[in-house]
Amino acid sequence: MIADLAIWFRSLQQRITDALERTDGEGRFREDPWERPGGGGGRTRVLEGGAVFEKAGVNWSDVHGDVAPLMRDAMPGTRPTFRATGTSLVLHPRSPRIPTVHMNVRAISRGDATWVGGGMDLTPYYPTEDDARHFHRVCKAACDRVDRSLHSGFKRWCDAYFHLPHRGEARGIGGVFFDWVGLSRAELPSRVQATSSFALESALPREQAVALVQSVGDAFLDAYLPIVERHRDAPWGERERDFQSHRRGRYVEFNLVYDRGTHFGLHTGGRTESILMSLPPLVRWTYDYQPEPGSEEARLLDFLQPRDWV
Amino acid sequence: MIADLAIWFRSLQQRITDALERTDGEGRFREDPWERPGGGGGRTRVLEGGAVFEKAGVNWSDVHGDVAPLMRDAMPGTRPTFRATGTSLVLHPRSPRIPTVHMNVRAISRGDATWVGGGMDLTPYYPTEDDARHFHRVCKAACDRVDRSLHSGFKRWCDAYFHLPHRGEARGIGGVFFDWVGLSRAELPSRVQATSSFALESALPREQAVALVQSVGDAFLDAYLPIVERHRDAPWGERERDFQSHRRGRYVEFNLVYDRGTHFGLHTGGRTESILMSLPPLVRWTYDYQPEPGSEEARLLDFLQPRDWV
Repeated sequence: MIADLAIWFRSLQQRITDALERTDGEGRFREDPWERPGGGGGRTRVLEGGAVFEKAGVNWSDVHGDVAPLMRDAMPGTRPTFRATGTSLVLHPRSPRIPTVHMNVRAISRGDATWVGGGMDLTPYYPTEDDARHFHRVCKAACDRVDRSLHSGFKRWCDAYFHLPHRGEARGIGGVFFDWVGLSRAELPSRVQATSSFALESALPREQAVALVQSVGDAFLDAYLPIVERHRDAPWGERERDFQSHRRGRYVEFNLVYDRGTHFGLHTGGRTESILMSLPPLVRWTYDYQPEPGSEEARLLDFLQPRDWV
Repeated sequence: MIADLAIWFRSLQQRITDALERTDGEGRFREDPWERPGGGGGRTRVLEGGAVFEKAGVNWSDVHGDVAPLMRDAMPGTRPTFRATGTSLVLHPRSPRIPTVHMNVRAISRGDATWVGGGMDLTPYYPTEDDARHFHRVCKAACDRVDRSLHSGFKRWCDAYFHLPHRGEARGIGGVFFDWVGLSRAELPSRVQATSSFALESALPREQAVALVQSVGDAFLDAYLPIVERHRDAPWGERERDFQSHRRGRYVEFNLVYDRGTHFGLHTGGRTESILMSLPPLVRWTYDYQPEPGSEEARLLDFLQPRDWV
């Protein structure tokens, strides 16, 4: 089953990069195929300096090998080997009027245990309620196609995950996030059983788990491209660009300080350039940076407060 | 004793910010005094947009309170309260011809246990052997004034600490780094006894530990300012600036992924702006960035390989 999913994820990467090239109109993805020394490999596709996308990274991978000693107890299953496959992307548009977006869909198997995870979330720079409603509606529909009980928990899981405790800020307006789906409660690692009510609430049979990860992957272009089209011709200048570059600093702080996937990858010898292709192209940090009180920029933090957008 | 050191560290901050303003010629430090909810406080001084320094942060703090539950076993001593004081700085010059520098000197006490830590290290963008030799000579002299056996271990400790495993790169050309100095071997936390041969090799009586941290703090301006003067009028353009902004990305990666002080601060409710004032003002990430083979920029990585500069 995971072999079929690996092929499906690769075709999803193809569909997405084709669509993004059409949307961009000028930029082209270059492809870096790579092999993992322990087994398997992937293809990283990056578009830089496009008309719409300043930096867009879409990665596909299908890796297998021995479970690292550190992961033996933390990972579901009991066999000594694993296989993991998925597609992940982060798109950084040039225009501060277009939100940054992240999407990841993945499947992992270890012996009899197979599970999926992922989701997508939106990081706007300028508040647009219609964008937030549209994005969340598409996310909800993708979950509802599998089981109408799923979306509410996955939405709250996303809000809880993409949070910067040291800033007391949300990274963006959220979306959906899930992990360990397809396992029975008994198969969940003990740490997860003890700490994640979200995981306990979202047990699904394996066939539905596969349908879920495909439904979310399929929904990505519908969730994001209409938002790009809505804002691609909106004007912006130095002021908006300066705000965007400071907000991108928060994206870097989240990815490098808190993101579990980034830490796991960097600490276990993952491919650095494929992991860090998520980092924004141009970033600023200014001491105690604050947007002007009452400005459109100052409204963003309030807009990012988690709420029911559907 | 730690009360005297707190006053000494504050006057060191004053000496350093006075000297940096004279060197810059245009920029002025602004001061942010702050209080720590659990006890104590500090004063953060930042100069941005200067003639020499694009962003210079010099922090002093003197905090006290209850030892956090997570730290009870990891911290030397047995009492429920602690006091920590120190001065730390990171200077990001505008010119890519002038290296970035970091310095930190600190003292901590918990009941009968008192120890010091810190050091300084240099991060050049363009290789200059005379700079590296000068910086390391001043570091060595600062250690030698206390005990001639110290420098070799502190130099290697610095090389081992400021290392990016996911890049296989050194952050800069090093300098000196030390921690837990002033404790007897028996007072070292068990994790440190088990993992840090550097700490075991550098046991010093308390009076010498205090002399060490003051000697290193006193040496900072001598170590760095001659390097600024040597390069302040050297020309640079877009090419050098682009290289600098990519290398600054490595600085961000180190500070946010690996630096123990940054993680400890962010995860224990430290003052975010004072912790992250070390981040560079303008940073770029480009997928698989590589300087042109054979160029001056390409020579940097070889130059950064740890070596005996004295």
